[in-house]
Amino acid sequence: MPRFDLPLEDLQRYRSPRPAPPGLVEYWERTLAEARGADTAGVRCVPAESALVTVDAYDVTFPGFAGEEIKAWWLLPTRSGGADRLPVVVEFLGYGGGRGLPHERLHWASHGFAQLVVDSRGQGSIWNTGATDDPHGSGPASPGMLTRGVDHPDHLYYRRLITDAVRAVDAVAHLPGGDRDRVATVGHSQGGALALAAAALHPGVAATAARAPFLCGIARAVELTDAPPYGELGGYLAVHRTTAEDVLGVLDHIDVTHLSSRITCPTWISVGLTDVTCPPSGIFGAVNAMDSATPLVRVWPWNGHEAGGADDDAHLARWLTETLT
Amino acid sequence: MPRFDLPLEDLQRYRSPRPAPPGLVEYWERTLAEARGADTAGVRCVPAESALVTVDAYDVTFPGFAGEEIKAWWLLPTRSGGADRLPVVVEFLGYGGGRGLPHERLHWASHGFAQLVVDSRGQGSIWNTGATDDPHGSGPASPGMLTRGVDHPDHLYYRRLITDAVRAVDAVAHLPGGDRDRVATVGHSQGGALALAAAALHPGVAATAARAPFLCGIARAVELTDAPPYGELGGYLAVHRTTAEDVLGVLDHIDVTHLSSRITCPTWISVGLTDVTCPPSGIFGAVNAMDSATPLVRVWPWNGHEAGGADDDAHLARWLTETLT
Amino acid sequence: MPRFDLPLEDLQRYRSPRPAPPGLVEYWERTLAEARGADTAGVRCVPAESALVTVDAYDVTFPGFAGEEIKAWWLLPTRSGGADRLPVVVEFLGYGGGRGLPHERLHWASHGFAQLVVDSRGQGSIWNTGATDDPHGSGPASPGMLTRGVDHPDHLYYRRLITDAVRAVDAVAHLPGGDRDRVATVGHSQGGALALAAAALHPGVAATAARAPFLCGIARAVELTDAPPYGELGGYLAVHRTTAEDVLGVLDHIDVTHLSSRITCPTWISVGLTDVTCPPSGIFGAVNAMDSATPLVRVWPWNGHEAGGADDDAHLARWLTETLT
Amino acid sequence: MPRFDLPLEDLQRYRSPRPAPPGLVEYWERTLAEARGADTAGVRCVPAESALVTVDAYDVTFPGFAGEEIKAWWLLPTRSGGADRLPVVVEFLGYGGGRGLPHERLHWASHGFAQLVVDSRGQGSIWNTGATDDPHGSGPASPGMLTRGVDHPDHLYYRRLITDAVRAVDAVAHLPGGDRDRVATVGHSQGGALALAAAALHPGVAATAARAPFLCGIARAVELTDAPPYGELGGYLAVHRTTAEDVLGVLDHIDVTHLSSRITCPTWISVGLTDVTCPPSGIFGAVNAMDSATPLVRVWPWNGHEAGGADDDAHLARWLTETLT
Amino acid sequence: MPRFDLPLEDLQRYRSPRPAPPGLVEYWERTLAEARGADTAGVRCVPAESALVTVDAYDVTFPGFAGEEIKAWWLLPTRSGGADRLPVVVEFLGYGGGRGLPHERLHWASHGFAQLVVDSRGQGSIWNTGATDDPHGSGPASPGMLTRGVDHPDHLYYRRLITDAVRAVDAVAHLPGGDRDRVATVGHSQGGALALAAAALHPGVAATAARAPFLCGIARAVELTDAPPYGELGGYLAVHRTTAEDVLGVLDHIDVTHLSSRITCPTWISVGLTDVTCPPSGIFGAVNAMDSATPLVRVWPWNGHEAGGADDDAHLARWLTETLT
Amino acid sequence: MPRFDLPLEDLQRYRSPRPAPPGLVEYWERTLAEARGADTAGVRCVPAESALVTVDAYDVTFPGFAGEEIKAWWLLPTRSGGADRLPVVVEFLGYGGGRGLPHERLHWASHGFAQLVVDSRGQGSIWNTGATDDPHGSGPASPGMLTRGVDHPDHLYYRRLITDAVRAVDAVAHLPGGDRDRVATVGHSQGGALALAAAALHPGVAATAARAPFLCGIARAVELTDAPPYGELGGYLAVHRTTAEDVLGVLDHIDVTHLSSRITCPTWISVGLTDVTCPPSGIFGAVNAMDSATPLVRVWPWNGHEAGGADDDAHLARWLTETLT
Repeated sequence: MPRFDLPLEDLQRYRSPRPAPPGLVEYWERTLAEARGADTAGVRCVPAESALVTVDAYDVTFPGFAGEEIKAWWLLPTRSGGADRLPVVVEFLGYGGGRGLPHERLHWASHGFAQLVVDSRGQGSIWNTGATDDPHGSGPASPGMLTRGVDHPDHLYYRRLITDAVRAVDAVAHLPGGDRDRVATVGHSQGGALALAAAALHPGVAATAARAPFLCGIARAVELTDAPPYGELGGYLAVHRTTAEDVLGVLDHIDVTHLSSRITCPTWISVGLTDVTCPPSGIFGAVNAMDSATPLVRVWPWNGHEAGGADDDAHLARWLTETLT
Repeated sequence: MPRFDLPLEDLQRYRSPRPAPPGLVEYWERTLAEARGADTAGVRCVPAESALVTVDAYDVTFPGFAGEEIKAWWLLPTRSGGADRLPVVVEFLGYGGGRGLPHERLHWASHGFAQLVVDSRGQGSIWNTGATDDPHGSGPASPGMLTRGVDHPDHLYYRRLITDAVRAVDAVAHLPGGDRDRVATVGHSQGGALALAAAALHPGVAATAARAPFLCGIARAVELTDAPPYGELGGYLAVHRTTAEDVLGVLDHIDVTHLSSRITCPTWISVGLTDVTCPPSGIFGAVNAMDSATPLVRVWPWNGHEAGGADDDAHLARWLTETLT
Repeated sequence: MPRFDLPLEDLQRYRSPRPAPPGLVEYWERTLAEARGADTAGVRCVPAESALVTVDAYDVTFPGFAGEEIKAWWLLPTRSGGADRLPVVVEFLGYGGGRGLPHERLHWASHGFAQLVVDSRGQGSIWNTGATDDPHGSGPASPGMLTRGVDHPDHLYYRRLITDAVRAVDAVAHLPGGDRDRVATVGHSQGGALALAAAALHPGVAATAARAPFLCGIARAVELTDAPPYGELGGYLAVHRTTAEDVLGVLDHIDVTHLSSRITCPTWISVGLTDVTCPPSGIFGAVNAMDSATPLVRVWPWNGHEAGGADDDAHLARWLTETLT
Repeated sequence: MPRFDLPLEDLQRYRSPRPAPPGLVEYWERTLAEARGADTAGVRCVPAESALVTVDAYDVTFPGFAGEEIKAWWLLPTRSGGADRLPVVVEFLGYGGGRGLPHERLHWASHGFAQLVVDSRGQGSIWNTGATDDPHGSGPASPGMLTRGVDHPDHLYYRRLITDAVRAVDAVAHLPGGDRDRVATVGHSQGGALALAAAALHPGVAATAARAPFLCGIARAVELTDAPPYGELGGYLAVHRTTAEDVLGVLDHIDVTHLSSRITCPTWISVGLTDVTCPPSGIFGAVNAMDSATPLVRVWPWNGHEAGGADDDAHLARWLTETLT
Repeated sequence: MPRFDLPLEDLQRYRSPRPAPPGLVEYWERTLAEARGADTAGVRCVPAESALVTVDAYDVTFPGFAGEEIKAWWLLPTRSGGADRLPVVVEFLGYGGGRGLPHERLHWASHGFAQLVVDSRGQGSIWNTGATDDPHGSGPASPGMLTRGVDHPDHLYYRRLITDAVRAVDAVAHLPGGDRDRVATVGHSQGGALALAAAALHPGVAATAARAPFLCGIARAVELTDAPPYGELGGYLAVHRTTAEDVLGVLDHIDVTHLSSRITCPTWISVGLTDVTCPPSGIFGAVNAMDSATPLVRVWPWNGHEAGGADDDAHLARWLTETLT
Repeated sequence: MPRFDLPLEDLQRYRSPRPAPPGLVEYWERTLAEARGADTAGVRCVPAESALVTVDAYDVTFPGFAGEEIKAWWLLPTRSGGADRLPVVVEFLGYGGGRGLPHERLHWASHGFAQLVVDSRGQGSIWNTGATDDPHGSGPASPGMLTRGVDHPDHLYYRRLITDAVRAVDAVAHLPGGDRDRVATVGHSQGGALALAAAALHPGVAATAARAPFLCGIARAVELTDAPPYGELGGYLAVHRTTAEDVLGVLDHIDVTHLSSRITCPTWISVGLTDVTCPPSGIFGAVNAMDSATPLVRVWPWNGHEAGGADDDAHLARWLTETLT
């Protein structure tokens, strides 16, 4: 896997040349306020069908963007038995996946955390199954999610998905056995972007961790790679060439580069230097924009999009245990 | 381009093993009745910005599925000058494209037809631009259009797109200069599927022509190819494996195989024997299900998805001229 | 994913045309007797470093082929607390992987089984890490494992690996908390081949389950696919063309087709009809050679090498729970 | 589509390091004089078989290199009816194509120009059909046209093709309905190279336009890309490695970089920054060598070889209309 | 390498369904008579520059098609010293190669044969260098040689190349040290086709050997493969679709299937069952058309276009030594 | 073939940033001393089966690493007849190949050298056959040779292979007809690395020549390319990410960069600037570390891994003839 991005010393200094879009703070305040003000059935949590023995699984429905119903699994280590409230990991998923079946993601519950596995609306058809509708259409768009709604910041698919992520953190307070004061957001790739965005937009997040996060430096990434999902945007810009600059301006509203400065909690990020799916300079751009927190950054010189993989998972389990205690 | 499907003599006899889904006639009657009953602003037709000299271009908006606004171009040969009404070609577009700019599709107007270039809702981002929203979301789906709404026949994206196609034929009566009694539906690939479906569902279609039509024998195609767009479905079925048979049953509602028997007008179809995008056995399955019309079938042994290309275009221009006179 | 192998009705009848190699029973009796007779340090089991909470992890070393030390993880649900002995899943791994870190494979322990994750000697460098040496060289061979030692049945790499698998079952009796009378062998791909081979060669196996097993119908597979790892053999035969038939005869000694008739315990097998890594006809050849057991066969028409994936895992967890009770 | 060439600010300054070959002016003077002096049957123009209604199509034969017969279509808007002479677009074609059928290229005639679609000798077998022989053999050459005749400037295939292009401009004076004083040369890729070369070599060209032109900075392009057709040369140089420098010196005779300084008419050029077929630095090298004209350069940051596509066509139609009035 | 053609037992019976074109005998008689009647400088043979010690190398020029000069190397084992005349191997080359440098092909001279390495006109730019012009142009053609001149049997490139091959056999009589009564024609791929064609058309050939010969069953091959060089034809037929059948009829004139029945000398052929460059059914079609000789056929089940490679070379050296003694 | 490495002027100055590993001299002294001290059957040389006439072929077995038996061919020009002792070329082979059959490599014997074609232990299954076992296992490793034994310098596969190369030079003294005072080591790719390493480690080597040598600047190469065989290491480092730096330190023991400064004999090296298999900067790093010899470096700007190919062979034959006289 050849190196294709800047040398490491340049990456460590790299800053995005794009300013935050005007009105970004208001955009997100309005978006979240509307979501929280929507009329909903509230958070529902019922036992899930599963043959698991070490973990109790619950089928969760919570209100997301516009109050729409979002699915999740709530996984509690069985031995936790009702005693103390556990620290919580809210886990977001990579592009194309969904919450799947309860037994598919046991990592955090097995490490003693209450784990909320949050479905991704309209996804869950590439590498495992989802269960949440995205009841919003769009204008002309590339196959995939990245270019849906790029005609206006209010139409962006990722506006909805990030709002769902923030509302997932809200939902924790309504679930049994978790400690709402010790909530971490965690994820890989798209899940990492959601983890960081939720930490930026929700003051109740106590720690956040992202492996190879997506949506960092979108305009730069699309210059460096045509791998999906950034490639969806490259294809779109090639066809909609006369509005390309406008589209990039719209996407700035959901670029983690412009949100990360608002993260104040402890932050853990890992990056692979040969990652053509989420190129490292985009991620370093988001890292180097953080001025309210000093993230722990793990750099993997020989890895691509998997970054630190199982080694990251082991490290992060210890880091989160320490950070949330 | 190797041959990969049945030998020609077997293709010429091939019949789909799948029965039409129960209630198919009612399904489409209800769908079209609802669309025609929707409250709309009617068909609008205003001059389009263009530097064309031999063709007058109009920007058309007509009500489609649920009365939603669909864009099109209406192209009239300038010399037609208001005199006689012209025979009409309603042209549907291949997957991923849209109506583009007025000068992009001059074939039929240049051959003396009034030409309606119909946009495809939500598409128009792969090979040229579209201008029509698809304001409907979906459950979890593969990137692309084919698996949107496969949880229920009423949710299918292609239910909406086929309805738009039928309503495009309806719209012709409201446009200047075209002869509503001499309307042909025409298209390539997805456009061919829409042409055939509109001919099956709209009694006012006087002739129909499809080059390498999509949506013919979906269940068979997905056994033969993983090329897009059928590959979208293959990927979906691999993930949603426990509901795969249900999904194929839902898709039967928009499979041309189950509609082609209702075509009664003169029909022209061309097929490439090495077409991995729309495999020939699926197309022959739709051809061999036609018992109310005898289609003219052009077989191109050495061609793929382009089938007869410019040679088909030349042949079809003459065939349509004769057929619509 | 196109279908490329026989139609399903032919697969269900498919029998391998190759006879079992002469002396196969003695070959394996001798091999296992030598392994069991080797002078070793016995089975060692010490607590493993891990942050897991629901599962206790132990670092296991057991004697394999020639008494050589094989690594494994022994994972016990923590709540099992020393009380009853648990049913045991001995899990073998896919090609190129190793036991990795203790937290990487929690499925069976989380479902209430004592789980032995068995390392694969000399592998563990493609998709995760291994920890076991293979201290045997070979004659000229393709990159990879499949053609190592193909000059003589006694030299085959897979002779050693299958022996390790049988000895892993032996080792269970020396591990705390597991019930040696309720041992299942389980795996996917190469792991599935080892699960079946161990069930054939070890009378103490009480149930066995293989998803998309490798090493079934090797000579047929190499006619159908050049995907790795069978492609290693295809490349080897192309170069060593004058000894190709001999090589296939040597490999018959480790082909599951010739071992499966000796399986007498309940057997669960799943197969994907578009699996180019382990083509379905090879697997059906092994299935249809079973005359001492009636395997439960799950056929996935739209899947490749993943076969039933998470759906298989859910089904198998229930099947094993019932079967081992 | 990743960026692979220089950053835009460097492109805008990029100058080819290669000097023009000695004797270049005389080379082209001699070549054109010989062509014009050849004994020929002159320009022939007969009505073409076609069903077109808005355009009158004529089958043209004109004398090219060595007086050899070159085919073209002459397309006149029917309404022009004999009245005024029309401005003329001489259109050259991309690599591998030919004039095809008359209805295949209606763009310029539909915009009110007399349009000459010029066939490419010996080509017309990759994406549509040609009708013109190239009755000249060559020494050893790669498949394709670029390396034919690279042993000597007089033997180059592109010497013949460029001469045909110049003679196409000559032929306009012999065709009905066109205004010889308002002739533009236009094309994409190879067609763009021919348009520019003809403008450089024929003083009667009143405007010229090239989208993503080929043959600009050949020696640089072959360092940057192995895509066809430049890849033909890369493969040739790898085999004929001891004469590689000589070959590049021969090809300098047909490199637009060394001709563009002679263009004095209004010039329109578009370039895609991710174009691996005709890399942007080669094109900017030709642009920046123009010192007798200030080209209008359209830069498309997100496009490849299609550059501005339909947007370019719309823009160019307006620009040419203004420029030729 | 998967099997993709007929099963071996069907291959062994396979006969081409295409009849020989009318007038084929006269076509070749006329062609060869014209070549032999051309006015030429005769065969020239001068010492070549080389550092070889075991072999004396001569630079040969002989008259081929139309008497045009064809280059070759004449390699004589040095120890042969002028004594007896040696048996001769006339070696023809694979597609895209040329005679290269004298030291590149030492096989036959090192085995004690006088070896004539015959250049291929106009080729020699893909895998090594050629030195012979092909001074004939063509009509529109695909990149490469296979479709040059397909408008008429007299224009075919391979008519010229096969004639060169026959004339190479003629030339042997004019070279020092070879025994004109013991001449074998030998080659791989295109070289194999030339070897067989020369044996069919030249009664003085005493033995012939072809490994994986090209030009056998062209019309069938192009249904089975799109690999080059047959893929050149597939691309051509896809574009020139309306004349495709005519083109295949023209190519029948140089198809070995229609010439092999005229071979009467001992014949050696090898074939790889996974050869996608020259599919086995085409070769078996040529083999099974031989009714004047019983070829020795070596079938390699696990090989592609290399067929028996070095094993074939060893076998053939012994077979030729025996056959030519 | 695009340029992907540094510009030539930077290559010519490029020095590896990695220091030689501590104890490197002792490591190799100990390794070679142990090999030479092993108890062996000595060098055996018996006539080989072959039909060659200009060359006498002998089947050689000599003691390599640990005294293990290594196979080779000894090829003598037949005319050399026992008279003078000939200069010797010890030829090492590219990755995946073996000594094959005696007739496969006739280049050096045909140029008047005694030629020793040295087999590569455990290889000889990718592009031709080998005959030598590598009786050493390894820890977990990628498919292929490069990562075998990377846990410790003493375990490295290439420690054994380089030792075999040095011992091949030793063996020459025991073979008939060669002049032990005029021994050159020669090879391409892996063979080039062995040639250089043997020249560095064996004072009796009188000249050495490497085309596109492997194992030069391993740590840099794996940043630039994922082509095999360096790609084996890239894949390994991605999985074994926590020990990646240690692994690179171990591999420094067999990197030619750290050995080339010990070469004192005349040295010939060629390099292709587009070589993605063995990137040029790695090779220049080894070249620029040579301070005891001034290598003749041939740079091929348009070539990949083949570098100068047959042109290099011709040049090298003359250079070696002059150098060894």
